[in-house]
Amino acid sequence: MMARTAVELSPRSIEREAAGRRRPLARVSRRAKSPSPDSGVRRLGIADLGSNTARLIVFSYEPGRWYRITDGIREPIRLGEGLSRGQTLAPAALKRAAAAIELFVDYARTSGLDGLEILGTSAIRDAVNRDELLERIDRLGQRIRVVSGEEEAALGVAAVANGFRYEDAWVIDLGGGSAQVSRMRERRYDHGTAHPLGALRLSERFLRSDPPKRSEIRALESTVEEELGELIARLDGSLPVVAIGGTVRNLARMSQKAVGYPLQVLHGYRLSREALEDVTAQLLAVKLKKRRRIPGINSDRADIITAGALVFRWLMRRSGLRHLVISGHGVREGAFYRHFLPAPYVLPDVRGFSIENRAARHPLPPGHAEHVRFLADRLFDGLAPLHQLTARNRELLDAAATLHDIGTTLDYYRHHKHGSYLLTISPLNGFCHRELALIALLVRYHRRGNPRLGEYGSLTEPGDRRRLRQLSACLRIAESLERARASRIKDLRVTIKRKRVRITVQAAEQPMIEIWEASKHANLFRRAFDRKLDIEADVSVRRL
Amino acid sequence: MMARTAVELSPRSIEREAAGRRRPLARVSRRAKSPSPDSGVRRLGIADLGSNTARLIVFSYEPGRWYRITDGIREPIRLGEGLSRGQTLAPAALKRAAAAIELFVDYARTSGLDGLEILGTSAIRDAVNRDELLERIDRLGQRIRVVSGEEEAALGVAAVANGFRYEDAWVIDLGGGSAQVSRMRERRYDHGTAHPLGALRLSERFLRSDPPKRSEIRALESTVEEELGELIARLDGSLPVVAIGGTVRNLARMSQKAVGYPLQVLHGYRLSREALEDVTAQLLAVKLKKRRRIPGINSDRADIITAGALVFRWLMRRSGLRHLVISGHGVREGAFYRHFLPAPYVLPDVRGFSIENRAARHPLPPGHAEHVRFLADRLFDGLAPLHQLTARNRELLDAAATLHDIGTTLDYYRHHKHGSYLLTISPLNGFCHRELALIALLVRYHRRGNPRLGEYGSLTEPGDRRRLRQLSACLRIAESLERARASRIKDLRVTIKRKRVRITVQAAEQPMIEIWEASKHANLFRRAFDRKLDIEADVSVRRL
Repeated sequence: MMARTAVELSPRSIEREAAGRRRPLARVSRRAKSPSPDSGVRRLGIADLGSNTARLIVFSYEPGRWYRITDGIREPIRLGEGLSRGQTLAPAALKRAAAAIELFVDYARTSGLDGLEILGTSAIRDAVNRDELLERIDRLGQRIRVVSGEEEAALGVAAVANGFRYEDAWVIDLGGGSAQVSRMRERRYDHGTAHPLGALRLSERFLRSDPPKRSEIRALESTVEEELGELIARLDGSLPVVAIGGTVRNLARMSQKAVGYPLQVLHGYRLSREALEDVTAQLLAVKLKKRRRIPGINSDRADIITAGALVFRWLMRRSGLRHLVISGHGVREGAFYRHFLPAPYVLPDVRGFSIENRAARHPLPPGHAEHVRFLADRLFDGLAPLHQLTARNRELLDAAATLHDIGTTLDYYRHHKHGSYLLTISPLNGFCHRELALIALLVRYHRRGNPRLGEYGSLTEPGDRRRLRQLSACLRIAESLERARASRIKDLRVTIKRKRVRITVQAAEQPMIEIWEASKHANLFRRAFDRKLDIEADVSVRRL
Repeated sequence: MMARTAVELSPRSIEREAAGRRRPLARVSRRAKSPSPDSGVRRLGIADLGSNTARLIVFSYEPGRWYRITDGIREPIRLGEGLSRGQTLAPAALKRAAAAIELFVDYARTSGLDGLEILGTSAIRDAVNRDELLERIDRLGQRIRVVSGEEEAALGVAAVANGFRYEDAWVIDLGGGSAQVSRMRERRYDHGTAHPLGALRLSERFLRSDPPKRSEIRALESTVEEELGELIARLDGSLPVVAIGGTVRNLARMSQKAVGYPLQVLHGYRLSREALEDVTAQLLAVKLKKRRRIPGINSDRADIITAGALVFRWLMRRSGLRHLVISGHGVREGAFYRHFLPAPYVLPDVRGFSIENRAARHPLPPGHAEHVRFLADRLFDGLAPLHQLTARNRELLDAAATLHDIGTTLDYYRHHKHGSYLLTISPLNGFCHRELALIALLVRYHRRGNPRLGEYGSLTEPGDRRRLRQLSACLRIAESLERARASRIKDLRVTIKRKRVRITVQAAEQPMIEIWEASKHANLFRRAFDRKLDIEADVSVRRL
């Protein structure tokens, strides 16, 4: 079966386009409020004018070093309204879109953004009267970049390449007007297709009753089948399927709220087939007024979300996929990386960057976290014969060591709990949620307490309790050996015996407080490694 | 009835002592790690060697500007062990104390503190062989300042004067060895008495059975009666009674845990008579092993806390006081203010300083919070005929406006919730817990949502729901009118009519995004003030 209206996307044209496009930002006037140019901090607004929503995100960043989102404006514009019946943007929709752009431009100019890039997607590219809108925007002194389906797909892939650790994946970006299905190969856009399967478009075309009738659902599904039927055999679970867009974010949030998910993080969430069946059934069971009130759903999306849910449900049912991986990042983030990074716009180390980016957000006196990380690694390596954990676990330990004290920026008292909180409210890109929970727990237990999986138990795997205990023991002893935060202990050796483990620390002088503090954790060590702990100092190291 | 062993404390001798004491810090070697002298940031350790615990707190600060606690070491030393039977420090106790000091000195030297001040209290001042300990400490190159009962009382009062908004109060500091009862008048130490009623001392002397027998309790209580009987008539509820010390902090924490208290803050907690009766009964009902496991109790204090609870219970029963106000700050903080502030070591504005100190902790681009505060105040004043709220409420609005965006330092998304979290984990000195909850709620609802008291309902008063709604409306509209964070709206006027309120904003140009954003909150405004909201711009203001 051929995809009826799919647009085939080829990689070459993308590269050509990218090469010719060097920061096509509209100039906006600088205001005294903006950071001085030599501070190196830039503030860039990236907006997209979708079929359902216009949304602006402000990125503050130093190129290549760190970034964070510092503002955002979201306006439901329903630009694609009526597009399922013809190819013309409705006058009211056009007016709403122009008003949103005017707001964005006003905001950008007044707040002193260094640049404002506005992307136009499916609704605009499909409309025969799109020039009417573009001219109105031109009159505001702003340009809008109408991206092809191919470029939109590639921007989604860029977001995934920089937001996950995957080398290869399928990426499905379902918007209000269209859905892009792309193949990422070695972290680059390889090929893809664009389909007229956006939530607003399908909703208008098929779901005229509230709640939808069975016949309407069947008609929708048979269109999805026509469009995506060919793809199904390739979604065989051998590669992750990453889902992008407001629709799937809402579905994921609904599912998280329904089960009391223990992390406040969407990015990286695995939406299982069962969970998707549940939320879709819930959406189909009620009328719009009740749908608006379902926790996790934006009320201005409640009328069209069912159509999007039906697309994903069909996909899961037909392919036998076990779960979708939700991306919190999409075309806007994909576009941002073209400003943040040099070509080819791919972070060399997603996990490493994500940890450093988080550490930059919570600045601490230098040296301590790095040294704790060094000592924790030395313990991990020295104890390898006992724990036999893979290098992947060492990465968790490294992340926790680097971030263990970020909670002190909130309050010194209970800073282990604050640090743990910080890790459960935002993603660490490249780590799955199970890993994120383990890192949060390592931070939680870096000073005291008996390490337990607790509320994160539902995210973990067999063996994680032991893993947590062993990594906690490494981190806590490393932290203790850095008690005076002055790198007094230069190195350490681990000697494993049948019933005991000896840690010999090297220093230029007797490290009194470090050994006193580390010795307190002999009990945790025994529970973790089933050995008694001896700590001794080798003070033969000469002071330089 | 005369206080049998109370030491009368007079204010004059304190002043004399204070005048002769100018930063008597031991010199500790500087290390490369300490902040460079010209950064202006100092790190000072203040420790006290109490009868039960030795505890070091590290303050990082710029004199007069901001401070925060950045490290701490706590070691149970039981220095006062056996002192109830004689006047001699036991050899083992002496050894533990010396070891703790050695740790503190090692830490201070290695971590590069700018100074270390160690205070010795009741156990040391009462012991005939105290010179043995002082000589051992001398050999470490460290001095210890043995404070008189009077000075200890005055340090407690200094902590209260700078930690609360009270002008006058009673201050009761119950430690391991002694209890000081002081009268604060106009934020200064006025007079006080020291009594041999510390928790360790009473426990050793009276509570030999586990759990204690009725006869033991009666004997303890009759000693308390002899010591404090005279005081009772003066604790008539006309002045707040502020309680200091590890014992009462543990009792308060126990009570908070028992009821699922909605704030993670001890300082400023009101421990009611009923709550104290409950926790005391709980302590009396079980043996030591179970007491150690009661949530909120430090396990190394579980053996003596009952005695302390009995002192406070007696005080509440006999005086008819409704509640104690718990201070999280004590002699260490009192001593710190002598370094942080110029004489007479009293913050001119406790609330204002506390808000600024918190804002300094979460640095944000300048200007925005100040302008939101300005606009919120203008709204509050303009709407006064409708809300008729006192100036005290304006202070809540000011605090919330100054701190409304601190959550963005955690993450932009849901920053209203993160900001609210930040306000519920540490005290804002000078605000009671009800006020703290209201400020947290104002931050919580500064962007969206229908303001509700929710989990803080138990802390609030009749009328607070309406108050929250009205103040939220002021803050949210002010925030919206500062949407571009560029102070574009210079001022505003409020015109109240029978069914409508008009806000006229003044700007040099049409403030498009501000009015668009503010208009979204007309519903909240109507619920708060029972008027429809019109917002209009007066752009006759000339740009300078």
